[in-house]
Amino acid sequence: MLEISAGDTAWVLASAALVLLMTPGLAFFYGGMVRAKGVLNMMMMSFISMGVIGVLWVLFGYSMSFGNSVGGLGLIGNPLEYAGLQGLITYSPDASLPSLAFVAFQACFAIITVALVSGAVADRASFGAWTLFTVLWGTLVYFPAAHWVFAFTSADGSVVGGWIANVVGALDFAGGTAIHINAGTAALVLALVLGPRIGFGTKPMRPHNMTLVMLGAGLLWFGWFGFNAGSAVAANGLASLAWVNTLGATAAAMLGWLIVEKIRDGHATSLGAASGIVAGLVAITPACGSVDPLGALAIGVIAGIACAYAVGLKYKFGYDDSLDVVGVHLVGGLVGTLLIGFFASPLALTSIADAADPTKAHAPGVAGLFYGGGFEQLGKQAIGAFSVMLYSAIVTYIIALIIKHTIGWRISPADELSGIDLAEHSEAGYDLSPVYYTNKVQRTLVLTKDDLAEADKTGASK
Amino acid sequence: MLEISAGDTAWVLASAALVLLMTPGLAFFYGGMVRAKGVLNMMMMSFISMGVIGVLWVLFGYSMSFGNSVGGLGLIGNPLEYAGLQGLITYSPDASLPSLAFVAFQACFAIITVALVSGAVADRASFGAWTLFTVLWGTLVYFPAAHWVFAFTSADGSVVGGWIANVVGALDFAGGTAIHINAGTAALVLALVLGPRIGFGTKPMRPHNMTLVMLGAGLLWFGWFGFNAGSAVAANGLASLAWVNTLGATAAAMLGWLIVEKIRDGHATSLGAASGIVAGLVAITPACGSVDPLGALAIGVIAGIACAYAVGLKYKFGYDDSLDVVGVHLVGGLVGTLLIGFFASPLALTSIADAADPTKAHAPGVAGLFYGGGFEQLGKQAIGAFSVMLYSAIVTYIIALIIKHTIGWRISPADELSGIDLAEHSEAGYDLSPVYYTNKVQRTLVLTKDDLAEADKTGASK
Amino acid sequence: MLEISAGDTAWVLASAALVLLMTPGLAFFYGGMVRAKGVLNMMMMSFISMGVIGVLWVLFGYSMSFGNSVGGLGLIGNPLEYAGLQGLITYSPDASLPSLAFVAFQACFAIITVALVSGAVADRASFGAWTLFTVLWGTLVYFPAAHWVFAFTSADGSVVGGWIANVVGALDFAGGTAIHINAGTAALVLALVLGPRIGFGTKPMRPHNMTLVMLGAGLLWFGWFGFNAGSAVAANGLASLAWVNTLGATAAAMLGWLIVEKIRDGHATSLGAASGIVAGLVAITPACGSVDPLGALAIGVIAGIACAYAVGLKYKFGYDDSLDVVGVHLVGGLVGTLLIGFFASPLALTSIADAADPTKAHAPGVAGLFYGGGFEQLGKQAIGAFSVMLYSAIVTYIIALIIKHTIGWRISPADELSGIDLAEHSEAGYDLSPVYYTNKVQRTLVLTKDDLAEADKTGASK
Repeated sequence: MLEISAGDTAWVLASAALVLLMTPGLAFFYGGMVRAKGVLNMMMMSFISMGVIGVLWVLFGYSMSFGNSVGGLGLIGNPLEYAGLQGLITYSPDASLPSLAFVAFQACFAIITVALVSGAVADRASFGAWTLFTVLWGTLVYFPAAHWVFAFTSADGSVVGGWIANVVGALDFAGGTAIHINAGTAALVLALVLGPRIGFGTKPMRPHNMTLVMLGAGLLWFGWFGFNAGSAVAANGLASLAWVNTLGATAAAMLGWLIVEKIRDGHATSLGAASGIVAGLVAITPACGSVDPLGALAIGVIAGIACAYAVGLKYKFGYDDSLDVVGVHLVGGLVGTLLIGFFASPLALTSIADAADPTKAHAPGVAGLFYGGGFEQLGKQAIGAFSVMLYSAIVTYIIALIIKHTIGWRISPADELSGIDLAEHSEAGYDLSPVYYTNKVQRTLVLTKDDLAEADKTGASK
Repeated sequence: MLEISAGDTAWVLASAALVLLMTPGLAFFYGGMVRAKGVLNMMMMSFISMGVIGVLWVLFGYSMSFGNSVGGLGLIGNPLEYAGLQGLITYSPDASLPSLAFVAFQACFAIITVALVSGAVADRASFGAWTLFTVLWGTLVYFPAAHWVFAFTSADGSVVGGWIANVVGALDFAGGTAIHINAGTAALVLALVLGPRIGFGTKPMRPHNMTLVMLGAGLLWFGWFGFNAGSAVAANGLASLAWVNTLGATAAAMLGWLIVEKIRDGHATSLGAASGIVAGLVAITPACGSVDPLGALAIGVIAGIACAYAVGLKYKFGYDDSLDVVGVHLVGGLVGTLLIGFFASPLALTSIADAADPTKAHAPGVAGLFYGGGFEQLGKQAIGAFSVMLYSAIVTYIIALIIKHTIGWRISPADELSGIDLAEHSEAGYDLSPVYYTNKVQRTLVLTKDDLAEADKTGASK
Repeated sequence: MLEISAGDTAWVLASAALVLLMTPGLAFFYGGMVRAKGVLNMMMMSFISMGVIGVLWVLFGYSMSFGNSVGGLGLIGNPLEYAGLQGLITYSPDASLPSLAFVAFQACFAIITVALVSGAVADRASFGAWTLFTVLWGTLVYFPAAHWVFAFTSADGSVVGGWIANVVGALDFAGGTAIHINAGTAALVLALVLGPRIGFGTKPMRPHNMTLVMLGAGLLWFGWFGFNAGSAVAANGLASLAWVNTLGATAAAMLGWLIVEKIRDGHATSLGAASGIVAGLVAITPACGSVDPLGALAIGVIAGIACAYAVGLKYKFGYDDSLDVVGVHLVGGLVGTLLIGFFASPLALTSIADAADPTKAHAPGVAGLFYGGGFEQLGKQAIGAFSVMLYSAIVTYIIALIIKHTIGWRISPADELSGIDLAEHSEAGYDLSPVYYTNKVQRTLVLTKDDLAEADKTGASK
């Protein structure tokens, strides 16, 4: 009988809160990138995922993801086993942390994965259609994929987990496959099914508020330490390794992206920095428990460079992946998942104080190609990555078609042109007018003489 | 002699930081909801609470809240016992975490409770009057109420705590009564004493920056995990239960509010999502340690629906509770506090590893009406709720009248119309003018040809 | 052989994440204070520090800071010892937390220190020059200073640390010298070498977005709990003391600054509140583990008042320390470092459960002048403070001159006038135009009739 570790519990609960914050962070990251007339809808697509998936997770989502595999097949957990989270409140003496701490942590993974997809349908998807999509996609795509990748078979075999983690043996520390490749693939499918925004490729569609984008990037990086280091499910050396790798890879990816921009375009942009950060975070997610810090730098810089080029593909091939979910999450997820086959370091195993306890390990200690291993792990990684990709593509496509042919996906062209915020939410993101138009006293304060002279010429100060 | 638990200490210190962040979060939530000309004053009312209550807490606030009851009456802690936090630095061998960790955690509760009230006096209260109010209300209303609800009598009876927690036996895990009912009641009193904003009910007063509101909602949700799960004062199963309930109830409340809006108004708004989040967080606050996750979903959805309707009452009855402190915190707090009488689950007790340690429990394990209990707990809940309400109403009213008849509450109508930021702080929230008026090069970048044509017609680009 | 403490590890990993968030927080604090046309460059100077220093820390920065002193001189750690963080992954049985947890925590100190300096060069430094500066200054100034102050000699003397911590014996709990005095001095040097912004002292240069400034201040305060309380490198009584002191001093400093403003200028501003918060945080940083809560209040209010006056010096002496790095970080850091000599309380030692473990203590328990001690500690503090100041001034000056005479520091006057965001990053911070110019439907929603009448007169609604 294990005793509850207050230290491990403290870290997992703190990590769960950090991961929860990532979804508002994503809302700001995405929201700042669209035009001002669509910022609220963009944010709402993330927030509604918190509402819908938060409820589904309690009802049956956790059970589908982490319940005993139906028929022992490793395909899906029993949705009734923990329906309503029944049976999980009681203190369980055979784990080092309370079951509900793990439930909390994984809930936030489910929430953000669904939210990630929304970047592909910016400015044009009806809010009702998106909400329905979160229900269907969470249930039919995410919960199964989480089962495959995150549910480990118990030591005595009495509880059977998912096939990718246990049969294939692909390494995915914190969710490169189930989360980023999965969401990125779904994004590509939705971009194709919905078609592009009006004006895509011809009209500039610049971010309307880069401070919001940078805020999102900052909160995502912050929260991602919970995501990655929390995935050790303990406060130990492995968590510390994941933490340091999450810092190093992300820093390197930011530099990689900015260098590409500087050389290719002549300018290093703040949008590039924010995007590079996310690309690095995505790529190190599956790998952060299996590589050493130098390997993390390598994965980061490769991901930063690869994604900086990949985001241009949408213009070439004409799919409107509006906020680059494909270019960053699918490509970054593939980079990170596959590079484990090259950079996995057996040393990572030694970061665990209690290596005898396999529940704390989920299988690091493998050697990649560059560290004396063979092609075996690379093969496993590829099977894991492409299986999730294929499954996600097919089921997302079916869901998307069902929605298209029932309630319909897109708002009217008139609504899209005048702005989805007004059309779908009857709101506007900003009303800064009083400062500039109606408050004469204030304007004399905030504007200089030159500004006023300029304003006089334009007639704005009359 | 107990040993300090590093795990429990880690969780309580992290939770304290999370709760501290809630007050800036509230500043943004409130600040985004007012018009642009009042955003700074709105934020400053929260920030000054951090300054004033932070200092008072060290001087005598903690002592009034958690010192030994004067005369053993359970009404107020001895303000001199821990004045200046004396005697609390030394390592205390009879508790599982350092005394100052608990001091830190509870400090942030005091700070945010005072800040919550400010939503009722938006755009019209002089900053000096508000600052004086924070001193008086913190001292005369919050510190006593915290004593009643949060100060537990020690096992050997040598330290006497507050009457609601110990004599009545009302359940309030993280502060439905002392915090939300208390602040909501005070908000109603201030709204009545100050009178409405100029134009209330006739002029639209829309949020000027919904991204700021959503940021506030996101930070509040994030921080609230510290608030609720930290209230277990340990990193254990009870904290994990509180965490999961805080997620589920909030998700359900958001959906509840949005569904009301969609049916009633035809649109689900982002303001509704943000408000629903806060309503759910408020309602689950007292209950999160006493109900199971399905009970939390029920409390959440009920709170979301109830508050969505309650915020309309101010127009009906004519009190200008500008940012819905009454509709969300008073109503949500009542919903959560009373519903414990229905949904309290005896199973919650089993979430505690060390149920023999009463300091970690504060009395879960009670059965509500729907879980086989009688009306007894419901009665206790009602006594707790209405006692705090009555006390808060009377004392807040006296404080408000004293301020009204001495330094006065309201700024001049001219200042209110031209904007409280300029009048009270000599500042403006935003100065985005250079981007649009004076920087010609930049404008050609950020505007499209169509935009420029439009701008030409308006004369703005000349 | 010590066992890893999961509780200590949880707290240090959480603290590391909190400190990481401070750099985006600083980016918003600084970004909001410049004009709208420079917000992106201002934020990018912080973000690039995350990229550059994050990578350097892994490569050799940690090793230069915490490696065994070269030649046992206490001047610089061996850069090769832990190059690439080699040898730190393996679980080390002689420490109470994994080596990489400490690596993570200290990485974020290095990142933010470099970013702090950028406030002095707002709106005019070429991004390439700044990026080069981060590489050189991090390597030649910060890593050595961190070694002097933070690297402790091991109990058996086999690992030699820095001279200020070990030979002088100056107290610096979380970095008043190595971080704030160091960055503030470098800021002064850069302000002098670069010269002022065009229009400095004659044109008003008001913050363009005070909500961003307040967001930055809020995130900085939040993260600073990790910075200060995390510096106990354990979840214990000392960490709790540091936490409470960080709250009290900051609250007091905010009040001190606002009172100065109110008396001197007639208004308490939100910029003053934000600045007072940072001043208090800076001043309590070195002292938070050595003073009691009343001492913290005293240090806070002194720092708030001192810095409120110090920020005016730049106009008197004509150096354009654009965002007051000197007035807040240099002055606040000196205030805090020197006041330890007056307020250090021997009681602080008793906050440590395990006082026998010197690794958890870094030398509190000293008595300052006001607590029965003599001038000795004050002298040590002065030596520490002025040594770092002198070193930073000289080496920063050399670096600044090298950059000036090679790639050059400043962008062209035309670029500075039209805005550095466009010139250096080819971006604009905001594009809110559609809401105001092109979307007629939306305008009728967000503006009242009166606003529209006003707009009609100005010609803006045509």
